[in-house]
Amino acid sequence: MSYLIVVDLGGTKIRAALAEAGGRITAARTLPTQAGRGAAAVLLTLKEALAALLEEARCPWSEVAGVGVCVAGFYNKEKDIMVCSPNLPGWDGLPLKAKLEESLKLPVAVENDASAAAYGEYCYGAGRGQENLLLLTLGTGIGGGLVLNGKLFGGSRGFAGEIGHIPMLSGGPLCRCGRHGCLEALASGTAIALKGRELYAAGTPTLLRQLKDEAAALRAEDVFAAASLGDGPARQIIDTASFYLGRALAVAANILNPGIILLGGGMAAQGDQFLAAIRRSFAAAVSPPIAEGLEIRLAELGNDAGIYGMLALLVESCFPGGAICL
Amino acid sequence: MSYLIVVDLGGTKIRAALAEAGGRITAARTLPTQAGRGAAAVLLTLKEALAALLEEARCPWSEVAGVGVCVAGFYNKEKDIMVCSPNLPGWDGLPLKAKLEESLKLPVAVENDASAAAYGEYCYGAGRGQENLLLLTLGTGIGGGLVLNGKLFGGSRGFAGEIGHIPMLSGGPLCRCGRHGCLEALASGTAIALKGRELYAAGTPTLLRQLKDEAAALRAEDVFAAASLGDGPARQIIDTASFYLGRALAVAANILNPGIILLGGGMAAQGDQFLAAIRRSFAAAVSPPIAEGLEIRLAELGNDAGIYGMLALLVESCFPGGAICL
Repeated sequence: MSYLIVVDLGGTKIRAALAEAGGRITAARTLPTQAGRGAAAVLLTLKEALAALLEEARCPWSEVAGVGVCVAGFYNKEKDIMVCSPNLPGWDGLPLKAKLEESLKLPVAVENDASAAAYGEYCYGAGRGQENLLLLTLGTGIGGGLVLNGKLFGGSRGFAGEIGHIPMLSGGPLCRCGRHGCLEALASGTAIALKGRELYAAGTPTLLRQLKDEAAALRAEDVFAAASLGDGPARQIIDTASFYLGRALAVAANILNPGIILLGGGMAAQGDQFLAAIRRSFAAAVSPPIAEGLEIRLAELGNDAGIYGMLALLVESCFPGGAICL
Repeated sequence: MSYLIVVDLGGTKIRAALAEAGGRITAARTLPTQAGRGAAAVLLTLKEALAALLEEARCPWSEVAGVGVCVAGFYNKEKDIMVCSPNLPGWDGLPLKAKLEESLKLPVAVENDASAAAYGEYCYGAGRGQENLLLLTLGTGIGGGLVLNGKLFGGSRGFAGEIGHIPMLSGGPLCRCGRHGCLEALASGTAIALKGRELYAAGTPTLLRQLKDEAAALRAEDVFAAASLGDGPARQIIDTASFYLGRALAVAANILNPGIILLGGGMAAQGDQFLAAIRRSFAAAVSPPIAEGLEIRLAELGNDAGIYGMLALLVESCFPGGAICL
């Protein structure tokens, strides 16, 4: 019983890793989720991938002490139900922990993916030494995770940190969650791409027309690229997104008084100009006593943050007092 | 060493109480702060009041194990500095804990008043049994306090819960904190009174003109009274305040996923219509999974919440494991 399995179950990819009791990852693999196949098929694929991982490491299932899974979406830990999972369509209502325990015959712990990533950054990344941190993951959607007093904070049902869905603009654009004006509908990669396509389709003179042959092919990266080349309309889209991101972080900081704020996810890597604009908007909106000494920095662990966070949680629960070495 | 002193140091009133080790309050008094006299004079008055309280209870200073003080404003616990205290003008920069310890020759603990009130409601009031709660105090200003995982949560420097100063409206009215569009500038008693005076002064036909002889005399209560009598313009002011309060609570709930939200302070008692409007605005803005089972209720301890919260904290720190009975 000296191995652990950790899984990051995303809408596009599944990342799985096998670790020794001390936390050292000995084998890992990434596979496509193909979420459209439905939960049963995805969980079967996951089991097969884990079996292959164990075989590769010559580790029998009986040597695995526990499995930690982090997943995109609102997962109710109290009741073991996927309440709302925009990236895993059709999974709503699924008792994920029970299904996995039945399939794998091992104890399973489930967390939200951004929460696990926040804990990963706290233990091994840009949040080391900060007892109170907020991580925002900026990608297709916007996720958030909280470490408070050195512990992962989930709130009363594991939903804490849902900063992507805080209402930022009354009557604003429709969000995937069904509400209007959520941060995610104003500042996610999806929102930025949509705004770019609208510009393109409206015939606005913009470099975006040179980057892609048709509006539908535009992605958030294209809008960032055009903006960095000095394209005014694209710049405006990025400025609007930065404005709302900075204000949302100011709101969260006023409520939490964190020691550090970390930005992760693919969009966080879009350059200094973007980060600087977020910081300016943040500074203009946050209460000065809260702002003092509070840095907004890039996360460090990239796509591995969730895996490392789940691993740390699993080591703590399966081997209390055990040392973690990565 | 079997007595404790607790003090709620507000901008208008000072409330002080003497309690036995078990937490039972044996004597209490309230006196005007007269904050304009400056910190030294106020702290001297406080010492005299405490001396009188002890004499009344025939308790020598040597029998007091500790003093707990909760105070309005941003108090930096880490550095022992009043960072910003709009209700105690001139106190900025004061090392309150050190000054009180020097004056009283006793160990002193200092907390933000809304934080202490949140803990009071958690221990003895409307928040009993809820491990994660948010208290909003609605009065002249808007304060906030958080209990997370059954413990008072202050964040990295004791400023957590500052919901009064979250930015709600870009370019909105000026707040006492120097920023524009804070919740407090849109929905506090001060903001509501100001809006009423503006209506009055603008010559708008409103019942407010019958309630007071001049605009300057109008208070928030007058606006609530006119609204409840069916006055349209006054109703509009209250509706706007309720709208922003509900949205701010939705924002906080999405970040914290609390088990309950409590409303305290003088304005919370302005009737069912006000509370219902806040709840409607909240429900329209909060993420559905977060809203499920989450109630917004009135706090129960009124003006005593801060005193009770400080007392509970003091009993825990001075007599670890000691039972609290009130």
